[in-house]
Amino acid sequence: MKKRNKDHKRILVIAAHPDDEVLGCGGTIARLAMEDNDVYVAILGEGITSRDDIRDRVKREKELNELKIQIKSANKTLGVKKTLAFHFPDNRFDTVALLDIVKTIEKIKKEIKPDIVFTHHYGDLNIDHQITFQAVLTAFRPLRSEIAREIYSFEIPSSTEWNMPSHTSYFMPNYFVDISRTLKFKIKAMKKYKSEIRDYPHPRSLKAIETIAKYHGIQIGLEAAEAFEVIRQIK
Amino acid sequence: MKKRNKDHKRILVIAAHPDDEVLGCGGTIARLAMEDNDVYVAILGEGITSRDDIRDRVKREKELNELKIQIKSANKTLGVKKTLAFHFPDNRFDTVALLDIVKTIEKIKKEIKPDIVFTHHYGDLNIDHQITFQAVLTAFRPLRSEIAREIYSFEIPSSTEWNMPSHTSYFMPNYFVDISRTLKFKIKAMKKYKSEIRDYPHPRSLKAIETIAKYHGIQIGLEAAEAFEVIRQIK
Amino acid sequence: MKKRNKDHKRILVIAAHPDDEVLGCGGTIARLAMEDNDVYVAILGEGITSRDDIRDRVKREKELNELKIQIKSANKTLGVKKTLAFHFPDNRFDTVALLDIVKTIEKIKKEIKPDIVFTHHYGDLNIDHQITFQAVLTAFRPLRSEIAREIYSFEIPSSTEWNMPSHTSYFMPNYFVDISRTLKFKIKAMKKYKSEIRDYPHPRSLKAIETIAKYHGIQIGLEAAEAFEVIRQIK
Amino acid sequence: MKKRNKDHKRILVIAAHPDDEVLGCGGTIARLAMEDNDVYVAILGEGITSRDDIRDRVKREKELNELKIQIKSANKTLGVKKTLAFHFPDNRFDTVALLDIVKTIEKIKKEIKPDIVFTHHYGDLNIDHQITFQAVLTAFRPLRSEIAREIYSFEIPSSTEWNMPSHTSYFMPNYFVDISRTLKFKIKAMKKYKSEIRDYPHPRSLKAIETIAKYHGIQIGLEAAEAFEVIRQIK
Amino acid sequence: MKKRNKDHKRILVIAAHPDDEVLGCGGTIARLAMEDNDVYVAILGEGITSRDDIRDRVKREKELNELKIQIKSANKTLGVKKTLAFHFPDNRFDTVALLDIVKTIEKIKKEIKPDIVFTHHYGDLNIDHQITFQAVLTAFRPLRSEIAREIYSFEIPSSTEWNMPSHTSYFMPNYFVDISRTLKFKIKAMKKYKSEIRDYPHPRSLKAIETIAKYHGIQIGLEAAEAFEVIRQIK
Amino acid sequence: MKKRNKDHKRILVIAAHPDDEVLGCGGTIARLAMEDNDVYVAILGEGITSRDDIRDRVKREKELNELKIQIKSANKTLGVKKTLAFHFPDNRFDTVALLDIVKTIEKIKKEIKPDIVFTHHYGDLNIDHQITFQAVLTAFRPLRSEIAREIYSFEIPSSTEWNMPSHTSYFMPNYFVDISRTLKFKIKAMKKYKSEIRDYPHPRSLKAIETIAKYHGIQIGLEAAEAFEVIRQIK
Repeated sequence: MKKRNKDHKRILVIAAHPDDEVLGCGGTIARLAMEDNDVYVAILGEGITSRDDIRDRVKREKELNELKIQIKSANKTLGVKKTLAFHFPDNRFDTVALLDIVKTIEKIKKEIKPDIVFTHHYGDLNIDHQITFQAVLTAFRPLRSEIAREIYSFEIPSSTEWNMPSHTSYFMPNYFVDISRTLKFKIKAMKKYKSEIRDYPHPRSLKAIETIAKYHGIQIGLEAAEAFEVIRQIK
Repeated sequence: MKKRNKDHKRILVIAAHPDDEVLGCGGTIARLAMEDNDVYVAILGEGITSRDDIRDRVKREKELNELKIQIKSANKTLGVKKTLAFHFPDNRFDTVALLDIVKTIEKIKKEIKPDIVFTHHYGDLNIDHQITFQAVLTAFRPLRSEIAREIYSFEIPSSTEWNMPSHTSYFMPNYFVDISRTLKFKIKAMKKYKSEIRDYPHPRSLKAIETIAKYHGIQIGLEAAEAFEVIRQIK
Repeated sequence: MKKRNKDHKRILVIAAHPDDEVLGCGGTIARLAMEDNDVYVAILGEGITSRDDIRDRVKREKELNELKIQIKSANKTLGVKKTLAFHFPDNRFDTVALLDIVKTIEKIKKEIKPDIVFTHHYGDLNIDHQITFQAVLTAFRPLRSEIAREIYSFEIPSSTEWNMPSHTSYFMPNYFVDISRTLKFKIKAMKKYKSEIRDYPHPRSLKAIETIAKYHGIQIGLEAAEAFEVIRQIK
Repeated sequence: MKKRNKDHKRILVIAAHPDDEVLGCGGTIARLAMEDNDVYVAILGEGITSRDDIRDRVKREKELNELKIQIKSANKTLGVKKTLAFHFPDNRFDTVALLDIVKTIEKIKKEIKPDIVFTHHYGDLNIDHQITFQAVLTAFRPLRSEIAREIYSFEIPSSTEWNMPSHTSYFMPNYFVDISRTLKFKIKAMKKYKSEIRDYPHPRSLKAIETIAKYHGIQIGLEAAEAFEVIRQIK
Repeated sequence: MKKRNKDHKRILVIAAHPDDEVLGCGGTIARLAMEDNDVYVAILGEGITSRDDIRDRVKREKELNELKIQIKSANKTLGVKKTLAFHFPDNRFDTVALLDIVKTIEKIKKEIKPDIVFTHHYGDLNIDHQITFQAVLTAFRPLRSEIAREIYSFEIPSSTEWNMPSHTSYFMPNYFVDISRTLKFKIKAMKKYKSEIRDYPHPRSLKAIETIAKYHGIQIGLEAAEAFEVIRQIK
Repeated sequence: MKKRNKDHKRILVIAAHPDDEVLGCGGTIARLAMEDNDVYVAILGEGITSRDDIRDRVKREKELNELKIQIKSANKTLGVKKTLAFHFPDNRFDTVALLDIVKTIEKIKKEIKPDIVFTHHYGDLNIDHQITFQAVLTAFRPLRSEIAREIYSFEIPSSTEWNMPSHTSYFMPNYFVDISRTLKFKIKAMKKYKSEIRDYPHPRSLKAIETIAKYHGIQIGLEAAEAFEVIRQIK
């Protein structure tokens, strides 16, 4: 029987939409999983339905089902232990009370008991990303009883850099993870999300994902990196 | 008959939840009241109901009634002249149109005619605090006809410091009130809110309230202080 | 037949309320129109209905109709080619899903195909202005296929400067347009919005509009100017 | 014998160059003096000598002497009780150790014992203004023994607005003083500084000074105002 | 005889060190030159001498001379019309009075009479970059007589991204120039600065320069781009 | 022979003045030393000499020697392995070229080879603290060859909170270290610096140091904590 790394951690990634977990921290997930940590992914939004003027889950049922399969496949590629998917309305999180999202995250927290949390950047252009960040921060308050002692936010190419270039929303990473050896799994996982991939130079093209990882590597002397903002660390 | 301080002012504290007025500026209220000013408190939210997945005032009726009594008792301790309580849904202010909250505050303004206003910090983690700030600022526009010439925002331990530590939300006080002589009334008033007090080192414990007051005192050479941000002063 | 300026551009101004287009960039519109560009104005909100506690378009029908006429007249004065008016609820944009506003703007974009976009400042006190900015930015993403290569935000006297004086919301212009020769058209257009003009020193008085234009001129060595923030320029 | 206002205060204005005290807060000085407060002005820099490639006080002796006379005359116009002038090198404060400027201000403080201090904005383009601000803040630390309980910073047209329009340096006033009745003294005092006045629309022209005062008035519903940032207030 | 582009402009790039002009805006220079504008480059610092504990130009004479040749060669590659080199001490600009640097730039300005200026980002880690920015902004004040109506700042890989990731210093570009067709000249020019090139993944390696250009392209839908902050534009 | 913790790290604290290492991170040093890490302290400034109008090391020789003894004693109390002291002029770091300080730190780096660095906050009021931060960041660039993969900044009570309360300088910690068990060593070490201790409520009094540690504890649910800003972490 394999012996566990004695420092192994429980990690929870909370993303707004399918594929955000890959774009935001796919390389880091793969590395953490390889290093014998348990990684869980929660995806709050259903995806796809914002394409219609009026949300219609029935009309999009087939695509939604396909997306479910893509989620599983992509997360398996990264070594994720368990993926939880919810059905908040795609790109319409502002039509839900923030408190309802907070309560959902509190239930996830109770189930997973994470030591470390990764989530969206508060300053993304996408409204669902903004709200997810605020809900995560509200659910993980630094109480004595709180187990999670590290919270990080990640960028989502095509949302983070598309907000106005302002100090009120800019992503300014101070935490870099070397993904030189796991960038390939990030790319591979992204390939599973066929419907979400775009042509270069779109930020969600495979070549762009690679370029962005190299760009962050250059910033701190590595071959490839993912970049994060430290929200809170307690030692 | 006692003669009034000729510079006496009408002060209005606008808080989102019962006990915020004590946590935010209880010592300052007590001092202003002692110095012969008229202090009014308006509490916009009902409290308590956010504990349930679905808001249910009937189920929580008993607690809501007890809370009403606590409000009266706490505010009496501080020397508040009149307390106005409203029923916006607890931790669900984002389900109400901002304009409805603004219009409520405009009615309060019309009744109280305050010279000075205290309210929440725009950058608190709590969504109701954020919205209260924006509604207050919208209701008190610097028109020629506006009587209120000073607006301040206060911090709420357990909400202000629990937002991410970012320049977009951080509380950076530049207005300090000496509460060396009235800290005791703040503590006494907080004791009335039995249901809201937590164990140390929770920020809403009595010992934490005292430590925070001393901390702000140390910052500017006093025994105890409350800290505020100046939003606007017109002389 | 008059020959067109070969560099002529298609410009789209997206405003939340009737008269915002004049206050925000009336002098610039007049100058751009005079210089043989096609200027289009889209006004998202209906105006007026926020005066009532409960929105009632029927009750305000007469005023709404008069406002329609004022819009036409004012925009004609500025040389606007076409004005599009929508009926999002006045000062209640937060009761609409952001996505619905985004989709409306995407339709306008499809129709007008603008090269340059002007809209509100994200940090205005007015909630409709804030939401308009976010919706515009979401609708105009910097994709390869996007025609609009310049986006600017303007200030609205009585909303921009009435937010708290904070780095998170302050208007800090870096783009100035000389309106020395077209300030008169801005004033003339504003006169058409009879119901919106206030007495000096209100920021929406005619004399205040002139003073503000001179103030921005002084900042950069001109007789009169309008001030903008560059959101994005691609050359 | 005239009886003094029982709340009268000792006010100290610390400026980098001759005329900064007028541009920054001339109307406020005049009002405070009229309301029976004692206003002192300290001017740290000598003026004029930055016009030469190499500082040469002897060459500029005549002009420096004339400037001395202008200082006296302008400050008398404002009702200043005493003006102190120092000889730090014009526009070359960065060639002096900050500590030497701090020690000079500490001596001024010891002599004047001010209750309230006005000085430059930290974010001005002018290097002397920046350094003066930092030196003032260092000299007036919030110790128990410190008498000065209010510190404000003012803008200097032609320096404050000429820095880049960035949140790191922008002047964002939250303290406005009604100078409707004393604007005329500000203008009159500026006229004494003949060598410093420029032609309109230069910010240091008489008409620009008036426009700026009106602009700040418009912002908060007054005929004319001076604008300040609150650095610290202790009550 | 070739006829000139009737809108042709005079452009001035002001850099602190040899190779900064290439790293910061080499692709843009090449494009502007190709499009029939006159581009001038001024390099304020001598380079190299900061490698010694005590500056010693004699000891480094040979290298300094070689660097001179590299400057000429690199700038010729980009199509620069004239390059001006100065001898401010390498990485020791803080030992010079800011005013002396300002006066040097004012002389350059008088000679070149630029319409458009490019210079460093104020928030770079490198002290010479910071000071160059401040000196440029001081020399190019927005007076009526000022010809330069556009000022931009560029990033320098290995200085801009090495400062702390803070809103007070972060580079947040809002002006992007398509260099898809001139990236090759940027690379070619950099090759001339043999002594300054480092191995990948150093930001000053050739492959890193290419990656960074692609990264900025991805941000706004282009193959390759250079990114800038708009400091001021007057139209 | 005692076996070492296999994850043990080399830690370097770089402080501007004697006692800053205790005030800034004394509790963290003690904890790290207890947990079998090697902690080194470098103190750049000589202390004391800023008390005189003109720096005079001879006059202050006796005090400087006593201070040396205090440094040793305090650092021994914390478990520091080696303390390095330098003689940059007290509160006059701005009279030294930044490059000279950088080169000193590079020599320290070469000797100590730290994995983790702690230093001052860039936004402190004290000029030496500001410069120390900038020099540390310049010396520890994120090159491939760089060993130090974590950099943190600490606050110094009586300097950090005495700067203006502005987003450009405010200390906003996101990294908290539990010092519940080592606060006593921090207090004990501070007692060694007899000449630097002040009376309560001065921030450098023993009771204030304790209150501040408790305040940071309250912020994140602990008995006592020290607070830091993450400058950079590479994993």
